[in-house]
Amino acid sequence: MSKPYLHTVLSPKLLDIYDVQDAVVVIIDVFRATSTIATALYNGATRVIPVDAVDKCIEIGKKTGGITAGERDGKIIPGLAHGNSPAEYPREFIEGKTLVLTTTNGTKLLHMALNKGAAEVITGSFPNLTAVCDYLASCNKHVLLGCSAWKDRFNLEDTLFAGAVINRIQQNFTIHCDSSLMAADMYNLHKDHMYEFIRKTTHWHRLSAFGLEKDLEYCATPDLAPVLPIYRNGDLVCG
Amino acid sequence: MSKPYLHTVLSPKLLDIYDVQDAVVVIIDVFRATSTIATALYNGATRVIPVDAVDKCIEIGKKTGGITAGERDGKIIPGLAHGNSPAEYPREFIEGKTLVLTTTNGTKLLHMALNKGAAEVITGSFPNLTAVCDYLASCNKHVLLGCSAWKDRFNLEDTLFAGAVINRIQQNFTIHCDSSLMAADMYNLHKDHMYEFIRKTTHWHRLSAFGLEKDLEYCATPDLAPVLPIYRNGDLVCG
Repeated sequence: MSKPYLHTVLSPKLLDIYDVQDAVVVIIDVFRATSTIATALYNGATRVIPVDAVDKCIEIGKKTGGITAGERDGKIIPGLAHGNSPAEYPREFIEGKTLVLTTTNGTKLLHMALNKGAAEVITGSFPNLTAVCDYLASCNKHVLLGCSAWKDRFNLEDTLFAGAVINRIQQNFTIHCDSSLMAADMYNLHKDHMYEFIRKTTHWHRLSAFGLEKDLEYCATPDLAPVLPIYRNGDLVCG
Repeated sequence: MSKPYLHTVLSPKLLDIYDVQDAVVVIIDVFRATSTIATALYNGATRVIPVDAVDKCIEIGKKTGGITAGERDGKIIPGLAHGNSPAEYPREFIEGKTLVLTTTNGTKLLHMALNKGAAEVITGSFPNLTAVCDYLASCNKHVLLGCSAWKDRFNLEDTLFAGAVINRIQQNFTIHCDSSLMAADMYNLHKDHMYEFIRKTTHWHRLSAFGLEKDLEYCATPDLAPVLPIYRNGDLVCG
């Protein structure tokens, strides 16, 4: 039997080239939405509700009694209570609560994938790398690794995560995809000096201006929040 | 004075993220449109007229007495006289003639850049690598390296060419662009075994089925057709 295919989508603008209806779509937003989602769930949040607009975030926060959170361009959005840093969601704060999250790139791509009828949506980042790989390797479904990018521009950190996944599970898939070959090459080239390398990315320069270096290093560290966030009926919950 | 910026655009679908009106746009379609354009001009074609539709190609061919050429999915288009292989355009055939060319990806991106008001359009591929680099390094203008991709999907060969250009001229530009960092990394990683590496690309697998291996190796070889194709009033001519 032929293996399922795997593709890497380098920007939300490229999503409609691919067939999402038949695939598990992995939403990747390393700096920082999907790192924060994994962290909040790992630390006991009952669910994360990803929303693609600020007014929806406020509205759903009121309805659910959840914690509203979100940033635009690295700053907490006025009207929301918290930001997009995984460090804001330790167990003593988030356990048993609902987090309602909106971000510049990751939650936007997630809703694009849902609107296009993705068969299944999960989220991935380095803090939950192994959980994502274990799931994809065992599920025997087509996979789209969806990089959230930065305002539709290709970014390195999401690509490196896609490469890390491919590096581990490529033998389970048919990969005829130059984006995936590139992502795997880039990961293998930089995996042994990841903290140094991410300092060269444009997103690092953008966010380090806000004093977030520790945050960004956390987001590039494997398996500190080993859960599988999976989208079910409006919520991201532990799979 | 600050240096001009340089960005790499990985797919035609990403072109409208960037400001083309203030930049030299380099159209890159290594397999094979921009390799063929450089070769035809180097071998004495008076001009290459790039067109984005087959009916226009036939119409302009009739008006100008030019040689019509074009492929879709690697095959000569019915109604046109020639294909998209640089090997079809030796000096004894093309000298003094007009070539009217339409292709799947490269001529499409070129017209997108023109329609968006690009300040200047040139074409690049390995056969004219040094000519392109010398021009960009000396012109003191912003640069967009535009990869034609394959039906909007990222491809490796155009990215490698962008990386080869960046590798040579980066000191002349301000580069805050993850696509460009990646392209340079990929080129440096593979530059010493280019013929082997291009055999891994999806486009190689697509075109090698048509027996075009020699063609593809030619397209990946630097400076066999050292001219600068520049767009002026509807024609690509030697700059």
